[in-house]
Amino acid sequence: MDTSVPAEADVESMLAARMTRVRNRMVTVGVDALVLSVGADLPYLTGYRAMPLERLTALVVTRDRPPVLMVPVLEAPRVTPHPRVFVVETWMETQDPVSLVAAALGDSRRVAVGDTMWARFLVELLALRPGLELIRSAEVMSPLRAVKDPAEIEALRRAGAAADRVGRALQNGEIPLVGRTEAEVSAELGDRLLREGHERVNFAIVAAGENAASPHHHPGDRIIEPGEVVLCDFGGTMDGYCSDITRCVHTGEPPAEFRELYSLLLEAQRAAVASVRPGVSCESIDRVARDIITAGGHGPHFIHRTGHGIGLEEHEDPYIVEGNAEPVVVGHAFSIEPGIYVPGRWGARLEDIVVVGPEGADPLNHIDHELVVVEN
Amino acid sequence: MDTSVPAEADVESMLAARMTRVRNRMVTVGVDALVLSVGADLPYLTGYRAMPLERLTALVVTRDRPPVLMVPVLEAPRVTPHPRVFVVETWMETQDPVSLVAAALGDSRRVAVGDTMWARFLVELLALRPGLELIRSAEVMSPLRAVKDPAEIEALRRAGAAADRVGRALQNGEIPLVGRTEAEVSAELGDRLLREGHERVNFAIVAAGENAASPHHHPGDRIIEPGEVVLCDFGGTMDGYCSDITRCVHTGEPPAEFRELYSLLLEAQRAAVASVRPGVSCESIDRVARDIITAGGHGPHFIHRTGHGIGLEEHEDPYIVEGNAEPVVVGHAFSIEPGIYVPGRWGARLEDIVVVGPEGADPLNHIDHELVVVEN
Repeated sequence: MDTSVPAEADVESMLAARMTRVRNRMVTVGVDALVLSVGADLPYLTGYRAMPLERLTALVVTRDRPPVLMVPVLEAPRVTPHPRVFVVETWMETQDPVSLVAAALGDSRRVAVGDTMWARFLVELLALRPGLELIRSAEVMSPLRAVKDPAEIEALRRAGAAADRVGRALQNGEIPLVGRTEAEVSAELGDRLLREGHERVNFAIVAAGENAASPHHHPGDRIIEPGEVVLCDFGGTMDGYCSDITRCVHTGEPPAEFRELYSLLLEAQRAAVASVRPGVSCESIDRVARDIITAGGHGPHFIHRTGHGIGLEEHEDPYIVEGNAEPVVVGHAFSIEPGIYVPGRWGARLEDIVVVGPEGADPLNHIDHELVVVEN
Repeated sequence: MDTSVPAEADVESMLAARMTRVRNRMVTVGVDALVLSVGADLPYLTGYRAMPLERLTALVVTRDRPPVLMVPVLEAPRVTPHPRVFVVETWMETQDPVSLVAAALGDSRRVAVGDTMWARFLVELLALRPGLELIRSAEVMSPLRAVKDPAEIEALRRAGAAADRVGRALQNGEIPLVGRTEAEVSAELGDRLLREGHERVNFAIVAAGENAASPHHHPGDRIIEPGEVVLCDFGGTMDGYCSDITRCVHTGEPPAEFRELYSLLLEAQRAAVASVRPGVSCESIDRVARDIITAGGHGPHFIHRTGHGIGLEEHEDPYIVEGNAEPVVVGHAFSIEPGIYVPGRWGARLEDIVVVGPEGADPLNHIDHELVVVEN
């Protein structure tokens, strides 16, 4: 159960309400059927998260029949039935599940398919039903999933508070850095996320010195030295909802030039958070951060978008990126995480998760935003 | 680098040789282009494993131009270039990577797409290039990947030996069971896989008593009692290649009826392993195990196939299942894992990985195949 925020007795009602909203939106978007498999859309609607397997799990929602969840027979014991929401059908090892999906589609023509479904199943489905007109499930699901309900926001808040406790240990110097490898510190950050209540660690980037110039650096055998930046970006899943935070610490006093770089970053991140209001566009929030960093001379060193939505997935709609003119609305949850990366030299990123409230951003991360100097 | 078995200096030569075989096979199969993304095909050909992200990574191999690996700009520092094998192109946050893929396809019409690529990218590609005729990447890649070279077999052997060491600790009673939860034992099995040299734990099923009747049981708060079966099925990745082993132990003396069930299972597993010869069909190996279990009265309780291929992925071709008439050949590596599951009561499974040699099965797991009785 990945959507475990409400009391167990209320889960079926919650799922039923979501299914109703999805079916209504299918009509609005002009979609005959929805086919979901691995990924977060499925647990959002059924409470069941499929394992990424060559054995297909598929929820088929048509306009006029009860939704059907097709599961491999040996996964069936893991499914909690919610008969008011969907019917469970199991398929045997010698059956072809794709032909069962094709049959369940009936005469549907315009079909939304799960964004993270394996392409092989879509290729096989198209071989059986070459006339299908396909769209992404995101067109149906994202506007619903992007607006978090109060229970989801509380789950994100708890995950954020747990990540904050790990980040505070980093800033307090409880986590030794100098003389350890990035990989060792990464493992400790992950362990601490679990001890603070996460059920899963999704990533724990630790990038020291010149490695901090690679935004998605893979922590390795590089030993952390005195006198360098250590960028830590970590997150996991807690009660089904994700955390994600980035803080930089410096082992000993940083050079003035790096202090200046970090001040610019901090100013950009604060301004972007302050710019959040219901109705402003996603790209406008990106521009606020980018304009400040560009004015400070580091425009070419800010090589990624300002943020991403977060919920059941670490990265989901809405994306805070140039080109996304969609307005943010109350209940949206996303990261604000500008970065400055000087190749071969150093880098920094600062990230909080915020939820959009009626008055503006409600941050879920509260620990020190400064470049904290640690001694060990 | 997930294909790290050969010395680093030889990696590029190995990748180049694989790329040549792939391009030759594209001609044989009649495919104009191959598009790979997340999953094992990509590291097999490039040494680079893409993160499962909404930012597309795609290798495009056409018949007549150099293969192009398109990566999001902030992932680019993680790519080890192999200029003899592929060209790296980075795309910026404000670009549409799918249109870059569409352009790279040139006038290709029949395109093989990565089995585990996210469907959203295929939907977007079809919107740009509606005339594409799609097939699964497996038709190009699987016959090549299924036949392991000597270095791959040694990697699988090392992973199997490490899993054996963990299994031996289970059978020796070094891992306490009675009074602990399934989840605690699962965590210990995972920790031990890492300590024995795995870089990642892929799963660690622990199913006690009646839970052993669910083949993919998720270990939970169920406390292990004296006098019951504990089914343990665990595996991970070591130097890029996977392990997978199942052993059952019994906390105290088992009832005669369960001993009989297990003897039947052991006979079926042994016979299936003994039936492996180059040239026999995959389904014939499945039948050997199934016929014995059926003759013993448990046919309806053996609800899954007998095995799956293993390599860079836990589950890959060839599948040992009714309906797969393909012959096994020297270099194939797969599991042989019959199971008997009596719902609500108990279950058992016994699993080894074997490699096909000229004389028959070369097992990679060697620890005790009996139902070992443990006291604590």
